[in-house]
Amino acid sequence: MQPPVSALHTDKYQITMMYAHWKNGSHLKRRAFDLYFRSLPFGNGYAVFAGLERAIQYLENLRFTEEDIEYIQSLDEGYEPEFLDLLRSFRFTGDVWAMPEGSIVFPEEPLLHIQGNIMELHLIETALLNFIGYQTLVATKAARVRHVVGDDLLLEFGSRRAQEKDAAVWGARAAYIGGFNATSNMLAGKLFGIPISGTHAHAWVQDFEHEVDAFRAYASAFPDQTVLLVDTYDTLRSGIPHAIQVGLEMKRQGKTLAGIRLDSGDLAYLSKQARQMLDHAGLTDTKIVASSDLDEHTILHLKTQGAKIDAWGVGTKLITAYDHPALGAVYKMVARYEENQWVPTLKISSNPAKITTPGLKAVYRIIDKKTGKARADLITLANEKINPKKPLLLFHPEQTFKKKKVKNFTVIPLLQPIFVGGQRVYSLPTLQEIKAYHQSQLSLFWEEYLRILNPEEYPVDLSQKLWDQKQNLIKEIYAKIKQEMEE
Amino acid sequence: MQPPVSALHTDKYQITMMYAHWKNGSHLKRRAFDLYFRSLPFGNGYAVFAGLERAIQYLENLRFTEEDIEYIQSLDEGYEPEFLDLLRSFRFTGDVWAMPEGSIVFPEEPLLHIQGNIMELHLIETALLNFIGYQTLVATKAARVRHVVGDDLLLEFGSRRAQEKDAAVWGARAAYIGGFNATSNMLAGKLFGIPISGTHAHAWVQDFEHEVDAFRAYASAFPDQTVLLVDTYDTLRSGIPHAIQVGLEMKRQGKTLAGIRLDSGDLAYLSKQARQMLDHAGLTDTKIVASSDLDEHTILHLKTQGAKIDAWGVGTKLITAYDHPALGAVYKMVARYEENQWVPTLKISSNPAKITTPGLKAVYRIIDKKTGKARADLITLANEKINPKKPLLLFHPEQTFKKKKVKNFTVIPLLQPIFVGGQRVYSLPTLQEIKAYHQSQLSLFWEEYLRILNPEEYPVDLSQKLWDQKQNLIKEIYAKIKQEMEE
Repeated sequence: MQPPVSALHTDKYQITMMYAHWKNGSHLKRRAFDLYFRSLPFGNGYAVFAGLERAIQYLENLRFTEEDIEYIQSLDEGYEPEFLDLLRSFRFTGDVWAMPEGSIVFPEEPLLHIQGNIMELHLIETALLNFIGYQTLVATKAARVRHVVGDDLLLEFGSRRAQEKDAAVWGARAAYIGGFNATSNMLAGKLFGIPISGTHAHAWVQDFEHEVDAFRAYASAFPDQTVLLVDTYDTLRSGIPHAIQVGLEMKRQGKTLAGIRLDSGDLAYLSKQARQMLDHAGLTDTKIVASSDLDEHTILHLKTQGAKIDAWGVGTKLITAYDHPALGAVYKMVARYEENQWVPTLKISSNPAKITTPGLKAVYRIIDKKTGKARADLITLANEKINPKKPLLLFHPEQTFKKKKVKNFTVIPLLQPIFVGGQRVYSLPTLQEIKAYHQSQLSLFWEEYLRILNPEEYPVDLSQKLWDQKQNLIKEIYAKIKQEMEE
Repeated sequence: MQPPVSALHTDKYQITMMYAHWKNGSHLKRRAFDLYFRSLPFGNGYAVFAGLERAIQYLENLRFTEEDIEYIQSLDEGYEPEFLDLLRSFRFTGDVWAMPEGSIVFPEEPLLHIQGNIMELHLIETALLNFIGYQTLVATKAARVRHVVGDDLLLEFGSRRAQEKDAAVWGARAAYIGGFNATSNMLAGKLFGIPISGTHAHAWVQDFEHEVDAFRAYASAFPDQTVLLVDTYDTLRSGIPHAIQVGLEMKRQGKTLAGIRLDSGDLAYLSKQARQMLDHAGLTDTKIVASSDLDEHTILHLKTQGAKIDAWGVGTKLITAYDHPALGAVYKMVARYEENQWVPTLKISSNPAKITTPGLKAVYRIIDKKTGKARADLITLANEKINPKKPLLLFHPEQTFKKKKVKNFTVIPLLQPIFVGGQRVYSLPTLQEIKAYHQSQLSLFWEEYLRILNPEEYPVDLSQKLWDQKQNLIKEIYAKIKQEMEE
């Protein structure tokens, strides 16, 4: 277990709003928020939801320490002692629904839906977005890499380039969920039981007078898992010949040189040469590992060129989500509980894509019974029922003329209850189960949605009732603005 | 203080090499490593060195816990008990030199130089690169933003989009060093004493039946620092008029509406309109804060368009270093201590830029006495002396025909002693001092090196002796490879 996350892992305006609500007497009013993202990273057709376990642990352990209270007090902004006492006894008391980790998810659908008092709902926003945004981003990037390598071994090597310590650790976890086999990060190995991987660096070789002595010494320390880095001086003229020399010595002792690693240069050419040289020497069981600024694009190109690479070490580009380093997840108020009922609420924006979808909602995945494949996700009012015996009319929420009628389908509800009244009601799956769940979910989708370049847009539609509610609320708000301006 | 960083915040191959050295009897051999980066991020002309304090705290507290040892043992890779005992009593015992935090730094120059036993030098690589890479990256990005805003207020708002918790906290610190005035991150405020900033979110407004009531309630909780977010429904027709209404109410009570915040839409147009409307109402002291996916480029354009913005909230693009999310720092062995002397060592690469510069080195900044401006940085052998009374011939390390002779100069050594024999000998400056130091350093450089687009390349040269040593070593290594291949 990691140490609990500080309650101060939040933005100041959350504390400010908590206080202003308390001053206003409205801090215990019940509200509902959705956490979701608006567009997909990397040009991918889907995202892989990750970060829930981290969010759950955060909510379960959320406390203000006396030191935190002292700090808030020291800000000298007039926080009254009764408010600070309220923070002292603060516990998360809300209700949470979420998608299971490893789920295939899409823009605009709630990944988490949270109900609670407005005070706690403000406090938790920053941390939830921070955790879930990052892990979902890396899991999605990892799934893209997995998509292009088939069954090859994938190793996460990004710790040194990660954006600080937590990113190295939680990024390793997310990469594992998204399809990686192992990480180089020891701490992630210890915390999550992820297999760890790694052999030696250039400095190991530099430390010996002769490269072959460096290889020999390494093989003698790890005779059952020797992987030798062959590019410290000259890959083809020095590194591979020396590795073969040591591999043959190992063979005579009944051992196998597990692999060589290429870390620079023309990986397509070098790997083909290396394979030939190894095979020619009889070292056909020796694998070739490659690393060197790899991502899904370079790997795809290397495979197209016939590179003879058995395992891929992916670092910087994965752990930082280099080509799209933020998911841009948001957390928006969707309903207020007033006079014994939930009242939908929304935020208008001059950009239509930024207008929220108001109200308490359910999310369903519509599965075609004949093919077993997903047809669309449908967001409905929370209390709406879908009758799978009747044809279902789906339409695009913006280009509403795009319609399709779906028959012979089953419906899978996507949001699971996680907390009720601040108590966790959800059993955390193991990381292995999460990884397996992710893998199983991929088979629900046609390849057209999964390919890494120009995938088809998977439909995420609103039910007629939800769509109507949203449009009516938009009209109401504009009418109110107009009326107020005329007064 | 943050909790100590785990000794397992490292790559597996570090542990593997530590063990292989121990098996080989070479684990206490003395070695020297440089930490540096090869190219500048964001197309900038310099980087701002940050992360040293984090690195120092890490080295001072580096211990394996019993739990860590158990985990390593559980890997079942045949680690012998004596090796595990060695880890139990592990302490950092090395010598460290480093640039002061806030320094203006350039590619290829050692930011840290570390000497110690090879075992400890391997262990610490991953964490040092991870800390210093990230903080230097964000401090550099922050300096770019500062460069375009002059004296405007700069607020770091990125916590929710940061790559996990540590990035939010240490990114806030780095942004402060690079020129930001405040952060929204409470934890960074508490840990580092950075001023914190933040008012309210859209959800605050959504929580009230009428926007004006939301503004009024907020102003009553924070009468001395009311900043109102005006884009929840309609900035010009609703948000600003309501803010003015509340501002005038405050004025009647002798208070001032501190500011309004624009968070979407056409910030150039809206801010000019807002300024007019506020001024027209007599609220000339009310400032305009803007946020909405800003970076140095959008801010520069907004300023060019005459946007009336007094303070800038910068989030995602800063905290993730969006357009270049990894510095790509490296850590390379440069010398081995053998038979009572340091022997330079290098790693060859087919890419000349990746060939290391061997040996123990010193780094100097050459300052023109007449202008007070920096002419070049010069890397020399550690024991080389520069005589400021003689003209100094500088040449480009690759295009060696590019030469210049420097006269009438002073020389500033850039590396400071930090640890001697594992003991810290350096007094940590305060964060305010680091920030001020950074600011003072900027004045040493001509604007041509500081501009954010197409800056001039600042010269980082090698002394003739160091250059010769490098070339000779490259030749020696190739000769050795050739000879070995012929045998």
